[in-house]
Amino acid sequence: MLMLSAYIPEMILTRRELHRYPEIAWTEFMTTQTVVQRVRDLGFKTVLGKKLFDETHAFDRQEKVIKGAIERAKAQGIDEGLLEEMDEFTGCMAVWETGRPGPVTALRFDMDCVNVQELATDEHVPAHEGFASKNEGLMHACGHDAHTAIGLAVAHWVKDNADKLTGTIKLVFQPAEEGTKGACGIAYSGNLDDVDYFLAGHIGVNAKLHEVAVIREGFMATTKMNVTYTGKASHAGGSPELGRNALLAGCTASLQLMGIARHGQGETCVNVGTLHAGEGRNVVPSKATLQLEVRGENHEINQYMQETAERIIRGAAECYGCQYQIDIVGAATNIKADTELSDIVFESAQSLESVKNVYNLSPKAGSEDCSFMMRRVQEHGGQAAFFLFGCNHNGHHQCDFDIQDTESMPEGLGVFVGVLKRLHEAK
Amino acid sequence: MLMLSAYIPEMILTRRELHRYPEIAWTEFMTTQTVVQRVRDLGFKTVLGKKLFDETHAFDRQEKVIKGAIERAKAQGIDEGLLEEMDEFTGCMAVWETGRPGPVTALRFDMDCVNVQELATDEHVPAHEGFASKNEGLMHACGHDAHTAIGLAVAHWVKDNADKLTGTIKLVFQPAEEGTKGACGIAYSGNLDDVDYFLAGHIGVNAKLHEVAVIREGFMATTKMNVTYTGKASHAGGSPELGRNALLAGCTASLQLMGIARHGQGETCVNVGTLHAGEGRNVVPSKATLQLEVRGENHEINQYMQETAERIIRGAAECYGCQYQIDIVGAATNIKADTELSDIVFESAQSLESVKNVYNLSPKAGSEDCSFMMRRVQEHGGQAAFFLFGCNHNGHHQCDFDIQDTESMPEGLGVFVGVLKRLHEAK
Amino acid sequence: MLMLSAYIPEMILTRRELHRYPEIAWTEFMTTQTVVQRVRDLGFKTVLGKKLFDETHAFDRQEKVIKGAIERAKAQGIDEGLLEEMDEFTGCMAVWETGRPGPVTALRFDMDCVNVQELATDEHVPAHEGFASKNEGLMHACGHDAHTAIGLAVAHWVKDNADKLTGTIKLVFQPAEEGTKGACGIAYSGNLDDVDYFLAGHIGVNAKLHEVAVIREGFMATTKMNVTYTGKASHAGGSPELGRNALLAGCTASLQLMGIARHGQGETCVNVGTLHAGEGRNVVPSKATLQLEVRGENHEINQYMQETAERIIRGAAECYGCQYQIDIVGAATNIKADTELSDIVFESAQSLESVKNVYNLSPKAGSEDCSFMMRRVQEHGGQAAFFLFGCNHNGHHQCDFDIQDTESMPEGLGVFVGVLKRLHEAK
Amino acid sequence: MLMLSAYIPEMILTRRELHRYPEIAWTEFMTTQTVVQRVRDLGFKTVLGKKLFDETHAFDRQEKVIKGAIERAKAQGIDEGLLEEMDEFTGCMAVWETGRPGPVTALRFDMDCVNVQELATDEHVPAHEGFASKNEGLMHACGHDAHTAIGLAVAHWVKDNADKLTGTIKLVFQPAEEGTKGACGIAYSGNLDDVDYFLAGHIGVNAKLHEVAVIREGFMATTKMNVTYTGKASHAGGSPELGRNALLAGCTASLQLMGIARHGQGETCVNVGTLHAGEGRNVVPSKATLQLEVRGENHEINQYMQETAERIIRGAAECYGCQYQIDIVGAATNIKADTELSDIVFESAQSLESVKNVYNLSPKAGSEDCSFMMRRVQEHGGQAAFFLFGCNHNGHHQCDFDIQDTESMPEGLGVFVGVLKRLHEAK
Repeated sequence: MLMLSAYIPEMILTRRELHRYPEIAWTEFMTTQTVVQRVRDLGFKTVLGKKLFDETHAFDRQEKVIKGAIERAKAQGIDEGLLEEMDEFTGCMAVWETGRPGPVTALRFDMDCVNVQELATDEHVPAHEGFASKNEGLMHACGHDAHTAIGLAVAHWVKDNADKLTGTIKLVFQPAEEGTKGACGIAYSGNLDDVDYFLAGHIGVNAKLHEVAVIREGFMATTKMNVTYTGKASHAGGSPELGRNALLAGCTASLQLMGIARHGQGETCVNVGTLHAGEGRNVVPSKATLQLEVRGENHEINQYMQETAERIIRGAAECYGCQYQIDIVGAATNIKADTELSDIVFESAQSLESVKNVYNLSPKAGSEDCSFMMRRVQEHGGQAAFFLFGCNHNGHHQCDFDIQDTESMPEGLGVFVGVLKRLHEAK
Repeated sequence: MLMLSAYIPEMILTRRELHRYPEIAWTEFMTTQTVVQRVRDLGFKTVLGKKLFDETHAFDRQEKVIKGAIERAKAQGIDEGLLEEMDEFTGCMAVWETGRPGPVTALRFDMDCVNVQELATDEHVPAHEGFASKNEGLMHACGHDAHTAIGLAVAHWVKDNADKLTGTIKLVFQPAEEGTKGACGIAYSGNLDDVDYFLAGHIGVNAKLHEVAVIREGFMATTKMNVTYTGKASHAGGSPELGRNALLAGCTASLQLMGIARHGQGETCVNVGTLHAGEGRNVVPSKATLQLEVRGENHEINQYMQETAERIIRGAAECYGCQYQIDIVGAATNIKADTELSDIVFESAQSLESVKNVYNLSPKAGSEDCSFMMRRVQEHGGQAAFFLFGCNHNGHHQCDFDIQDTESMPEGLGVFVGVLKRLHEAK
Repeated sequence: MLMLSAYIPEMILTRRELHRYPEIAWTEFMTTQTVVQRVRDLGFKTVLGKKLFDETHAFDRQEKVIKGAIERAKAQGIDEGLLEEMDEFTGCMAVWETGRPGPVTALRFDMDCVNVQELATDEHVPAHEGFASKNEGLMHACGHDAHTAIGLAVAHWVKDNADKLTGTIKLVFQPAEEGTKGACGIAYSGNLDDVDYFLAGHIGVNAKLHEVAVIREGFMATTKMNVTYTGKASHAGGSPELGRNALLAGCTASLQLMGIARHGQGETCVNVGTLHAGEGRNVVPSKATLQLEVRGENHEINQYMQETAERIIRGAAECYGCQYQIDIVGAATNIKADTELSDIVFESAQSLESVKNVYNLSPKAGSEDCSFMMRRVQEHGGQAAFFLFGCNHNGHHQCDFDIQDTESMPEGLGVFVGVLKRLHEAK
Repeated sequence: MLMLSAYIPEMILTRRELHRYPEIAWTEFMTTQTVVQRVRDLGFKTVLGKKLFDETHAFDRQEKVIKGAIERAKAQGIDEGLLEEMDEFTGCMAVWETGRPGPVTALRFDMDCVNVQELATDEHVPAHEGFASKNEGLMHACGHDAHTAIGLAVAHWVKDNADKLTGTIKLVFQPAEEGTKGACGIAYSGNLDDVDYFLAGHIGVNAKLHEVAVIREGFMATTKMNVTYTGKASHAGGSPELGRNALLAGCTASLQLMGIARHGQGETCVNVGTLHAGEGRNVVPSKATLQLEVRGENHEINQYMQETAERIIRGAAECYGCQYQIDIVGAATNIKADTELSDIVFESAQSLESVKNVYNLSPKAGSEDCSFMMRRVQEHGGQAAFFLFGCNHNGHHQCDFDIQDTESMPEGLGVFVGVLKRLHEAK
């Protein structure tokens, strides 16, 4: 078996190349092309396009943004045949069937970036080394470039070691993790229903460089909603009685949403993050839009929050004689990892020489998109686990976010491959 | 024809006796007995009890208060047979049919008092003269004692002058004028549908002693509502999520009601006067009650206010998952008096020697209960008018309210009788 | 004396030229150049730039917009010396002193356009005749192009008839009438304090073609405000307690502003037209901006509305621990025209052959920017009046607004000149 | 040393006598008399009246209620000299100084009842046995009668065993535990500043009969507030602008209070339990009162809640131009018991034969009034602990609440005495 170090230089290069061309949720066409071409070259089968998703659970797909991204991809020279295969849906599941009896394991790697303008000063390593983002206003400031590159390194390792492996290995390259938009549609597609072991990881977050944290349970269930109120405009001075005030519906909803009663059984959160309403100073406002999210310590508590929010939104519409529309634009649930698989992850991390500290973690705050994949696998009898592999950073989603790719990424790769070895190596 | 002055001493005495025993809305059992016995003695036919009302428009009849009043009336020695005739409904319409062809004229006199504790000091004439209220917390502080006494004097005059009169004269002794509760039920009963001329008056208000104001149009349409929200109590600390917060429903409704958009076509008013909610500091409040009223410059504008209020009340219930109930407890509409009849009233007032000033008035503020009777008569082809006959007072509904009964009441009587003469005297 | 018809062709051309290059409030640099060059050529003295204004009452001057307009004006070849004279302030007062004793009369003409994209279809006369707006998104859709052109025709007439005139004539070419931003600063500058007669007019509104309406009193006093709340952002999930929620401050203020108690002495209006708040779904919103306006039937009632609004805005900031800022961006007061001058206007209109109908009007709704000029003149002992000269239109501020310039404008010119003749012609 | 069983019959009788005459917070005059007479008879010194309290921290003392209770106590034959000593303050600290060197230990027993009408049916033991409450609407439905009776039994034991004991023993008979009103004033009085060991217990709650739960940490810090808004009444129809709407201030505050942002560091609660506002349907409401409480997982978080609530209350007053007043009517803090003393309590409970189960507990919900005494003792270098001794019950504050006094109370007594033995028995 080749040493893992053999895969590191290519992995670093891949990550830096991806870093240069970050793509936001549901627009990862060039990234998907990179992934698909590589895994096909290695001999993987692929699941692409609408086959990868249950469309009703693919959240917040904005037609205009996607169309624009397709044009940009064309301009950047994307293979048009592959683009057709994608059918407007980014992401790819690469499948390796060894032909030998054995478990089905799925590993998840996310690919999207965030809306941040990358720092251009010399102290920022990507700028200094010349691989800073070339896409204006977009940046891989959460490390998903590293995730994708690790996934491709895992793919390479699988191919090279295929004759020693058993069962089936599925590498899920997921779009639209940010805002918890992309995972749910893949979960509901059924593509993971045969999976025995599901593992996902994230660089950074709580874990410092040379640390690995195995998440035993936690994160919050969450639902992200966009709300639109439509009333009726009228001249505020001359005929206010003819208007239906959408601004006031939005204000009423906002005040009440922030006052949803706490839950006796666990933590809750709610935030109305933005409210935009009205057309002009002297017009009864006929339109209001809100972006909000609710969270709960577990699925049931989040359901309570979501249903109460929906009741409030509906009631506020009624109060002001407005129409309303609620769009779910993101959703995640809480995590309860399986002990057996988590212990294997723990052991795999401990066996890596460079890793100084492996520990269990049950974070309360935060939400993880792949939670729905984990839950789906568990509902079908499989096991699921999640881990963090560390890096030192100035905060995710910051313009000066950076990872120590030469040191941190090999440890992430090491954990994934270690788990595959433990589950799939022919005895 | 007897001089009107012949009726004055008895009228004064009657008013003072009534003043001693004020009765609040829908409890005027003793007052009704006084009226019925007198008018029957004079030879009038009477319409009593449920025959006088359309029950669904008899607003805010409080079972417990009425039952209590019946007990009090029994204790005060009311004629039990008459009480049975009343069938829990106070008020009386006395009808005199001359047998000679001629118009049907209805005059309205209201009978109820207000919830005020009468001043007991010596400067207050009723106290000084020994006819202050003997009913704790109740007082004829709006002058309806005078109205009823005038009505009985008119009755006396009609009887005495019956042989010179034509047509039919209906004297409506109305209960529950305060809060605009009693007139609507009489209007909808149909008892006035044959009326050609309808006239009502009020002592005081804008008019000073020796003034008469003929109301040409005005007053506001109004609807009084009681609202009850019923939610669900729960322990606020332990399981707030199980509660349904009626207090917040009431607060939301209150804030929104006060913000009902103004109307481009005319004046509007709204007031949430009282709000009572909640059971204890640490309990999610399961009950809230509101007393409110809306007004509009005319019927349509008041409808707009009422319907918007109802929508808000319903929406606020929805917001908080509460049940709601709306009880209409009072209603009046605006007045458009008929010119012909108003001119007759004007002329009748001018012909009185003691009256120094007769003028037309179109007040914007305020509401008059008999407006629904006026409208009903007008809808059936009759004419209606309204006037104020003056007195000097310290403000209606005040504990030191008083009228100059020896000077003011004769002028009111004079206008009513003058109008009857002009309409009914055989030529 | 030349027939007025002599001035009409030039006036039409001027109006159409102005129509082609509409300029929004405070950016009327090219329009001002046109005015200044013409009136100087005619021999008028001019008051320009900051001398024309009390700066603290020049409302809603947006630095960035003005700078941009200056650049555009330069690109369009404005005379740089004149631009310097303007000192960033558009508008011009043209003064003709006859040297003969006589009254001082000021006529007001406004010059700004509105934010409307002009209709390009062939049925729209300006498009068909080729003088539609060339400034994207801007349009003279309220007729101020006509006002300015009339003002210049009046100037021409004054010059031509100077030897027959007495006293002093001031032609005020006012910027920023829309949103009631520009007049107040001119009023407070003192430039009108010596005025004996002040007259302004507006095309269209209630008056149809060949009608003239003399406004005796009315319009509402108004104050336009922009409000900014500044709170503190924080992560809504992780540390909501560290945030200060500006969105909720804005919502609370909005709900309460709409519920400002009506006023017993007269009409009121209030509208929160727009509300924009928040940075992102998961961030406690740290910023909110509102555009609102209040109105009152007269100055005192508007003061009540404004002060109550300010109290609410301050209180809502306190509730949520936010900072707030209120910017007055527009103000007007109600109008009480003087009878003597109004009668002269009436007579002047009646004397025009083409005018079919002259009538008095006391509109309740609407607000007129020059009201502050009128009040200022009246406070200094002068008289003021206002009139509408008609045209048939599809509604002001609409993309298909149009006037019948060949028929309507001459009537406006006729009224102004007729008044000047009556006041200034040497007997 | 006498067996503890010797004290049981008297203790049961005392408890049943106290049960017969329950007294609500700050009115425990007869109960205090019982306590004082007994402990003085036994030879204890006593601290009474204002000496027992820091008055500014004695919460929610309602003058009228206290005066009424004094009259009732006089009618029930209270010793007037003792009443004078009390100086309107109920409660008593009984002090036994052994004269031998040793620690100072304080035990807390609370004495007040709740506003519940006791069940009169035969299945309810106190009714069946004839010791149900004789004070209408009042009931010892939380077991404080048992606490007081146990305290007196401890006093008896101390006296009987005085020659074997060292140090000083303080028995604190505290009034007004319900609503967390009474303890804080005793804590701040300094009477406990020399205490080395402080112990309090409560019957029932989580613990079943024959269980003892030692509270290691928990309960929530809480502040109870009454809020009064005072605005200005005016006629809602005629001059709404003259009013200052206290109802709307109360509604605004209520809505915002329920929406106080959660705290990232721990649990919070808030409840507006009652709101009463307004005088009449047609009057701008000039008065509103609210009862509310906030809670936090610890002192700092409760401070955050209290301060935010105060800011909201102040801001809402400002919004509506009202005055406001906040009265703190109850307060408690969270508990962190000392390990050493808690272990002694645990051991003392385990040594009791009838107790089947002793366990540690760290409850999140609920609040304990004596927390301020515990904290005060700890701040002065002492230790503090708290325990529950069980009984089977239908829920505290219910009309059918009962304890198994013959079985449960001896266990409570046993723990207290066991702790005293371990701390004070001369070696």
